[in-house]
Amino acid sequence: MINVAVLGYGTVGSGVVEVIEKNKDMVNKKSAQELEVKYILDLRDFPGDPYENKVIHDFNTILQDDSVTIICETMGGVGAAYQFTKQALELGKSVCTSNKELVAKHGPELLQIAREHNCNYLFEASVGGGIPIIRPLNYSLTAEKIEAVNGILNGTTNYILSKMEKEGADFDTVLKEAQDKGYAERNPEADVEGYDACRKIAILSSLMFGKNVDSEKVPTEGITKITAADFEYANAAEYTIKLLGRSRAIDDDTAEVMVAPFMLPKDHPLAMVYGVFNAVFVTGNMLGDSMYYGRGAGKLPTASAVVSDVIDCARHQGKVIMCFWDKEEVKLVDTRESVRSFFIRAKAGAKGAVEAAFPGGRELHLADRKEDFGYFTQPMKESEFLAKYEALGEQMLGRIRLV
Amino acid sequence: MINVAVLGYGTVGSGVVEVIEKNKDMVNKKSAQELEVKYILDLRDFPGDPYENKVIHDFNTILQDDSVTIICETMGGVGAAYQFTKQALELGKSVCTSNKELVAKHGPELLQIAREHNCNYLFEASVGGGIPIIRPLNYSLTAEKIEAVNGILNGTTNYILSKMEKEGADFDTVLKEAQDKGYAERNPEADVEGYDACRKIAILSSLMFGKNVDSEKVPTEGITKITAADFEYANAAEYTIKLLGRSRAIDDDTAEVMVAPFMLPKDHPLAMVYGVFNAVFVTGNMLGDSMYYGRGAGKLPTASAVVSDVIDCARHQGKVIMCFWDKEEVKLVDTRESVRSFFIRAKAGAKGAVEAAFPGGRELHLADRKEDFGYFTQPMKESEFLAKYEALGEQMLGRIRLV
Repeated sequence: MINVAVLGYGTVGSGVVEVIEKNKDMVNKKSAQELEVKYILDLRDFPGDPYENKVIHDFNTILQDDSVTIICETMGGVGAAYQFTKQALELGKSVCTSNKELVAKHGPELLQIAREHNCNYLFEASVGGGIPIIRPLNYSLTAEKIEAVNGILNGTTNYILSKMEKEGADFDTVLKEAQDKGYAERNPEADVEGYDACRKIAILSSLMFGKNVDSEKVPTEGITKITAADFEYANAAEYTIKLLGRSRAIDDDTAEVMVAPFMLPKDHPLAMVYGVFNAVFVTGNMLGDSMYYGRGAGKLPTASAVVSDVIDCARHQGKVIMCFWDKEEVKLVDTRESVRSFFIRAKAGAKGAVEAAFPGGRELHLADRKEDFGYFTQPMKESEFLAKYEALGEQMLGRIRLV
Repeated sequence: MINVAVLGYGTVGSGVVEVIEKNKDMVNKKSAQELEVKYILDLRDFPGDPYENKVIHDFNTILQDDSVTIICETMGGVGAAYQFTKQALELGKSVCTSNKELVAKHGPELLQIAREHNCNYLFEASVGGGIPIIRPLNYSLTAEKIEAVNGILNGTTNYILSKMEKEGADFDTVLKEAQDKGYAERNPEADVEGYDACRKIAILSSLMFGKNVDSEKVPTEGITKITAADFEYANAAEYTIKLLGRSRAIDDDTAEVMVAPFMLPKDHPLAMVYGVFNAVFVTGNMLGDSMYYGRGAGKLPTASAVVSDVIDCARHQGKVIMCFWDKEEVKLVDTRESVRSFFIRAKAGAKGAVEAAFPGGRELHLADRKEDFGYFTQPMKESEFLAKYEALGEQMLGRIRLV
């Protein structure tokens, strides 16, 4: 029998307890032994909860109990979660986490501590919620050189963009509705500004290279400037708009990594990923394109991924599971040096100026919009585009990169 | 160093050699040791081939060489491939295969022999070509009770159906073109009659239950009766037509498994899987829906999956990798007892008869088609539907199940 401790009895933590309980037969069969949640660490008490007698408040109880060999860290944050994870790994207790912030920030260090103490630090739930993506990258696509990863990595922003597209609503309206429904946080910054997607693409890029991509160095742009009008033009041109985390290998040590809204053709597999669903599109040098799709968040999907890690730890007690992610930094190229096309939305009066600044592009006029027009530029260096775009000043109403 | 032997130097076998050679750095890093192809078994010689000096004709050379611990079986068929696989496993040599026919027919027996001899029988490439699906089912979705698997599992038929949809062409025309391009075999029966998809859904269902689904008991219907006219109606009703392998758990021991063309809504994630791409849509009791998408066939994608198995064997020498697939049979329910809706295409004159036989359905008339009409029935038992449909005789031009 293996005793498990759950740190943090919030949404994901309570989901972990629920999955282990509800799918007990399957979990025990796949673990080849019985799993039991022995402790739930939380600052709060949970009177009336079926597991209230497992709730404790002192992490040392878990550390000092040698019968606990697997810990689920579902607290979030990089303070106590970091300390607890480190202490646990140093004692040879494996840790399974859904905490992308901590994985993005201290992943390579915690993996090394785990290796040194013959235990595991697993984080399937940190990217894509319930979508198996960490394991496919680590254990399935092992014969591949991964050339690129493109992902819809945040459910809240994908829900907002999907609603804007389908209902013609504006960002603020849909955000408010999403907040009321609990799909978006009261403080939505981490989602709508792209920070959450940034952490996730940094984790995926790190696994792609086996070296570290520092999330703080990844250029990140959110979706707050996307408007209903942008979707009207996108739709007319057979495009959609998605917040993408993108990573492209330049060579074995160098990558272009970024998070930004992109226009992509409606027949691209990522274009059909709607609502709270996420998907990761992986391009390998032998396999070509593959995609992993599913619920990117939510209590039970995320918990299911954490428990799959617990099962993996149970089956590999005392053994280190392969994960290549060294501290060495991947060099990030300046995304402004990349060449791509842009969509521009501009005031009707700016037609001549836009054509002069971006020759050879394609204009798009919509019958019901007299006040503005759309324009797709030829491929050009991003820095050059941005300089010209900004020089055109208030005539410009918006710009979106094309994939 | 690990010596590898490749059985069969055809499309996939030569791809395996190419992947190991081209991605040598990655393959050796992930294997944590050097992999070397020592023998290539084939009846033919390959003068001028860069690996011609590795080509041998006698399997005993491989069996008797203790330095060969991993074998790639890329011969196909259930004759020699079965004998060779068995002999290799009995000597403790792991076998990695792309041979779905053999896996579907003798999977549980070969897995048991592997277990008894402390080696592995792996078959990631047997379903979905390069798409990681066997490993996600075996190692990722371990905390899930899988409720259903729906897959587009055959690239040839999906290519044909996609072409028919996009070009309005008929089955025979597109098949001939596909044969000319090498996308379809001269003898296309295994693909177009659904037998290939049937083996694959049997393998996936077996892994879903951990028990055996006998592919020979799976009701299988191909795509030869689908017409350009069916696609016209489907398109007008916002549907598409796909050949699906479907498996649905009734309880822990009982399933409904079938292969047939289905109409599915255009916004279903499987509907956007076009051309030679394949996808597997998995529904779990915690995770909900997830999907795995990629190239379902082709030399390098399939070879990449075989090599990922080789790497797994290399990392687990002398250890048995978890795979639940017992000989015990899953009970299959009679698909004719299932309740679903059907699409009917019927001669224009049969309007009254169709409405009388299938009351409460939805008619569909197309302006440019006077000779026939479409009809969507209410959900009804399949056996009841078929009896009534057949009773209407030559008035009926086609029928397709709805998902």
